[in-house]
Amino acid sequence: MLAARYYGKEDVRIVNDVERPTCGEGQVKVEPAFVGICGTDLHEFMGGPNFSPTTPHPVTKEKIPITIGHEFSGTIKELGKGLENSGLKIGQKLAIQPTIYCAHCGACNNGAENACLNGGFVGLSGGGGGISEEVVVPAEACMPLPDNVDLDIGALVEPLAVAWHAVDASPIAHIKEPKCVVFGGGPIGLAVVQVLVARGAKLVICVEIAKKRQEFATSFGAHHVIDPSKEDVVAKALELCGGEQPPDIAFDCAGVPQSVETACKVVKSRGAVVNVAIWEKSIPFNPNWLVFREASYKGVLGYQKKDFEGVIKALGEGKIKPAPMITSRIQMDRLVDDGYWALIKEKDKHVKILVDVRAGVSDTANIVSS
Amino acid sequence: MLAARYYGKEDVRIVNDVERPTCGEGQVKVEPAFVGICGTDLHEFMGGPNFSPTTPHPVTKEKIPITIGHEFSGTIKELGKGLENSGLKIGQKLAIQPTIYCAHCGACNNGAENACLNGGFVGLSGGGGGISEEVVVPAEACMPLPDNVDLDIGALVEPLAVAWHAVDASPIAHIKEPKCVVFGGGPIGLAVVQVLVARGAKLVICVEIAKKRQEFATSFGAHHVIDPSKEDVVAKALELCGGEQPPDIAFDCAGVPQSVETACKVVKSRGAVVNVAIWEKSIPFNPNWLVFREASYKGVLGYQKKDFEGVIKALGEGKIKPAPMITSRIQMDRLVDDGYWALIKEKDKHVKILVDVRAGVSDTANIVSS
Repeated sequence: MLAARYYGKEDVRIVNDVERPTCGEGQVKVEPAFVGICGTDLHEFMGGPNFSPTTPHPVTKEKIPITIGHEFSGTIKELGKGLENSGLKIGQKLAIQPTIYCAHCGACNNGAENACLNGGFVGLSGGGGGISEEVVVPAEACMPLPDNVDLDIGALVEPLAVAWHAVDASPIAHIKEPKCVVFGGGPIGLAVVQVLVARGAKLVICVEIAKKRQEFATSFGAHHVIDPSKEDVVAKALELCGGEQPPDIAFDCAGVPQSVETACKVVKSRGAVVNVAIWEKSIPFNPNWLVFREASYKGVLGYQKKDFEGVIKALGEGKIKPAPMITSRIQMDRLVDDGYWALIKEKDKHVKILVDVRAGVSDTANIVSS
Repeated sequence: MLAARYYGKEDVRIVNDVERPTCGEGQVKVEPAFVGICGTDLHEFMGGPNFSPTTPHPVTKEKIPITIGHEFSGTIKELGKGLENSGLKIGQKLAIQPTIYCAHCGACNNGAENACLNGGFVGLSGGGGGISEEVVVPAEACMPLPDNVDLDIGALVEPLAVAWHAVDASPIAHIKEPKCVVFGGGPIGLAVVQVLVARGAKLVICVEIAKKRQEFATSFGAHHVIDPSKEDVVAKALELCGGEQPPDIAFDCAGVPQSVETACKVVKSRGAVVNVAIWEKSIPFNPNWLVFREASYKGVLGYQKKDFEGVIKALGEGKIKPAPMITSRIQMDRLVDDGYWALIKEKDKHVKILVDVRAGVSDTANIVSS
């Protein structure tokens, strides 16, 4: 079958002879529909392999080349044994919860399988991927979509679940009329803005330099946008909060040294900073930024089933309307040129580019055998 | 009257003509008994003024020279108007809660007066200090000591309250049989060890290089000591916890770059790091240390009334027995030579040096007029 495979840095191939997976007990064969391209995919393409296994992954036992695509929707093609009473049905629309975990490490035993010491993701760590004609996943990875949520929106559930998880890990539930600052208006920053708005945050401020991303933030419900190149973020955020109590929570979805320092300094006493970025190296950090306001800084990673459920429910109820995040739809064979390179070269124009897997290929010239 | 006054770097004088304070409405005149020398005092002496006000302090309106000593006990000499029914009595033993706050900033209005934007401490920011014959403080600063807690122990309440506050700010109350790692066996690290033991921590591990401090940690109830120059702290702590779940909470009382990195890496998934150190400059920090275990890093500052109350109750009940922390007692005029310089030159030998204010001076040669 056709599948997009990651071989290494700047080496992603559309391969035509990938073996079709078989559907074992408790497993579900899914026909992928739409697949989002994620920042992690880009990092692997530009500078990897970092996350992609170069030796057999402890859970999937696979190493590169591997099939890619971990933000995806699809429909059920086949149900493995033992799923007769699972509620899952042939043809059902799904978003896939792609977390891979070992189920026996300290993190898994601690209820944090998203931080599994041996973990990974379908579409990044082996176990197939979304950009392929078929993929087999465990039944628990199948998150049914309501009738009124289309398959293209279904591919946005994963990035929205990252945001949902980050918001859930913050103290938002304990704050009356929470006031929040989101650093960065990229895909995850915009997802956090939407989740905060959906969950009733009193004030959502997005800190972003790029004009186009500022517009996106506003369109998704951010109450204010601060351009950090033009305004003092700490002073302006305090002013927007009424001048006395600074914001309760800051979400760092920008992941640059300046956003960390400003996020720590923008929150109120005993406020919280949630880091939603993945880092490449150490940065300068002064613990006093937190000490003198008794603030906390928290790392979050991925998502859990509850986060997918939260997002899907909010989508079904119309509380999150993420369609404008989709800035381009491409066919599988355009993945590198119109996917990766478009995101790199036209960074501010795009939020999420979807691969429409069922649209097939535009040209057979770039299809290779393994 | 006699008082020790801070004039600037390496310039602390015992002055004989400091004006006696008057006791206004709602205020209490205290005769200091014992005063601990703190790390902050040392920092000010060696490299200040940093914390000491060089322009009028927003609350006390004083600037250097100021009377020093903020870790102190004493007895009530005079009660100001309006305190007839306060429960306070002439001659009563006290520990002093020295926090100074403005009562109108965002932090104060948020219930975090210990992080007051205009805050300070009696004995560091004006408002008198413990190393003097008399000091006047607000009634709310007076924390009565039970009969069975002596005045020398009363001077240890302040550093123990720092530890109590840090432990209270951690998630310890939500963890069954908490397992904790304390980085650093200095005065604050040893105070945290004692508070954790008093509050029933299942396992307390102290990470410390100096032999003498390791012995102190053990004598105060630490179940294990790890020498980071000889063992892999992360691996050893996991082993001491039974090999599967790493420690729940780490307290960084060492305040060096290596302790931050190791503290972040030693805790379990969703574990917590509490920073109890004050920093001079930025350090290298990789947020991924927290991200991949979804851990949190929290700053804490000083203490509140509840922390003094918690410590004093534990002292009264014999749950904390901190007397061995007192490694030397000196007279006021020996403050620089046998206090500051002893702590600097014989760092590992000393935990807490107390100035016995009522013992007067050993020699009038070093007493000066202002």
